Amino acid sequence: MQDSEHYSIGIDFGGTSVKLGVCRGAELLTTDEPIPTAAHPGPNALIGAMAERVEGLRQAYPGIAAIGVGVPGLVDFDRGYVHELTNVPGWKHIPLKTILGEKTGLPVVVENDANAMAYAEWRYGAGRGLRNVVALTLGTGVGGGLVLDNKMFRGSSFSAGEIGQMSIDFNGKPGHYGNLGALEKYIGNAQIAEHAVKRYAEAGMSKDISECTPKAIAIAAQNGDDIARQIWEELADWLGTTLSSIAWLLNPDAFVIGGGVAQAGALLFEPLERKVQSMLSTVVWEKLQILPAKFSNEAGIIGNAALAADAL
Amino acid sequence: MQDSEHYSIGIDFGGTSVKLGVCRGAELLTTDEPIPTAAHPGPNALIGAMAERVEGLRQAYPGIAAIGVGVPGLVDFDRGYVHELTNVPGWKHIPLKTILGEKTGLPVVVENDANAMAYAEWRYGAGRGLRNVVALTLGTGVGGGLVLDNKMFRGSSFSAGEIGQMSIDFNGKPGHYGNLGALEKYIGNAQIAEHAVKRYAEAGMSKDISECTPKAIAIAAQNGDDIARQIWEELADWLGTTLSSIAWLLNPDAFVIGGGVAQAGALLFEPLERKVQSMLSTVVWEKLQILPAKFSNEAGIIGNAALAADAL
Repeated sequence: MQDSEHYSIGIDFGGTSVKLGVCRGAELLTTDEPIPTAAHPGPNALIGAMAERVEGLRQAYPGIAAIGVGVPGLVDFDRGYVHELTNVPGWKHIPLKTILGEKTGLPVVVENDANAMAYAEWRYGAGRGLRNVVALTLGTGVGGGLVLDNKMFRGSSFSAGEIGQMSIDFNGKPGHYGNLGALEKYIGNAQIAEHAVKRYAEAGMSKDISECTPKAIAIAAQNGDDIARQIWEELADWLGTTLSSIAWLLNPDAFVIGGGVAQAGALLFEPLERKVQSMLSTVVWEKLQILPAKFSNEAGIIGNAALAADAL
Repeated sequence: MQDSEHYSIGIDFGGTSVKLGVCRGAELLTTDEPIPTAAHPGPNALIGAMAERVEGLRQAYPGIAAIGVGVPGLVDFDRGYVHELTNVPGWKHIPLKTILGEKTGLPVVVENDANAMAYAEWRYGAGRGLRNVVALTLGTGVGGGLVLDNKMFRGSSFSAGEIGQMSIDFNGKPGHYGNLGALEKYIGNAQIAEHAVKRYAEAGMSKDISECTPKAIAIAAQNGDDIARQIWEELADWLGTTLSSIAWLLNPDAFVIGGGVAQAGALLFEPLERKVQSMLSTVVWEKLQILPAKFSNEAGIIGNAALAADAL
């Protein structure tokens, strides 16, 4: 698939800020000053602020042909409709595509943020050129998105890719929906910290939760702390269980893993490779790559811009 | 999608017999006497026997335009190539599409048997008209196949759909590949029987493994045996854990469940519905149906015939 020739705007709509940028193919040409989400209470004010920024960007890049917006919640991609954003007050039942399209005169696509990240990695990132890519973001929770047979796969009600809710233990800890063994209750940021406090306590060491962030555990492991290393092995066991289940189901070319927890690098990826290989047949494993994400903060802008350009 | 107008032959190649039938759209017009697999040692003899039967069927149905063969093992669908059939001696690296095509002069497709069953259910069975269907067969093991966005999804090395290998417990019983918590080590025929013997023993009742087949446990439960009912609840918990994980990942329209264990009907499906609902969000659950398969023994013939006709 060729890089897109179109200029398009990617908007990464988060709970704290709305980030905007202009892209052409794989290139991120410029980013704009973020809009604080809370500064514009209510959808109309915030969409108005987005439209103003779009006008400014179009003066600098007159060729801009489309807008892609990624939002932190459930959308109907076909209609460009936001069902609800649980972390943004007032955002419920908003026809974002229609409103932003009317204000700007440009074609608009609206996508879920995890899907936009997956699309960025498949189209221009670590999963480029691969047919079947499963992308994950490891942070507060675990998000995901699927590109299958070279197409974004959204599921029957645009809810596919909720990897953090998949179970690793039929008798395990309940997730947000009462779903026993939900992966994100094992490897979310807060759960990693709680688990580390417990492991240190078992070894007779008292640590505060703030000393046990994924970043702190990574630094400790790099400095030779055996407990910290074992914690990364355990995290890899849990995550690897889910990845192997997905691999048995989908037989993908690659997992692409981003987000804060993935910053641990080899501390996570090495035991993860071992674990996943130990759970798979040769046929499934041989085809599979486990890759760190190429993009970080800019993934949303690039993915949404690409979705918009590719829809032209 | 309209019913196919073509006549085609479906061949269901099993470890014990090779079954053949002629289909037109949803109709199974005739089935032929099965060929005992062991009666024709080696691929050439068996493919020759298939070709002879094909000639006989073409005399009765001169309009036959294609052949679909489903095999119990790994295939390359694009090339119609059989990698290996572990339960059929001598079947390794066989270009089945080429050989059978040359012998008959007809276009041939070669598919994995679980995929053919899934295709039958999606095209003409319980999943007809639905966009995203996950099919399972519960028997000695647990097989599966996926139709996603109205297309058979095969994965990157034609190995997708191995639902029986997915993990329900990161610390659980090892599967065939050493994969801890493999679903089929909990709900395969033999594992159900072993589990039932154990549950009866815990209740002070000594039962032989042969008295604990899934069928026997179903009859016992229907006759009011509380232990047998509880066993079906446990099986539903295990299977439901995997189904909910798949639903979070793929957000499908339906699970279609066939095979011997599914014959238990409401004993399995009722607790399974409850379990899966308890593990999902409303958005994912509302869209989802859990359906018994429409086809049983004829699924392979119908699915392979349909795959062949639809490829024309």
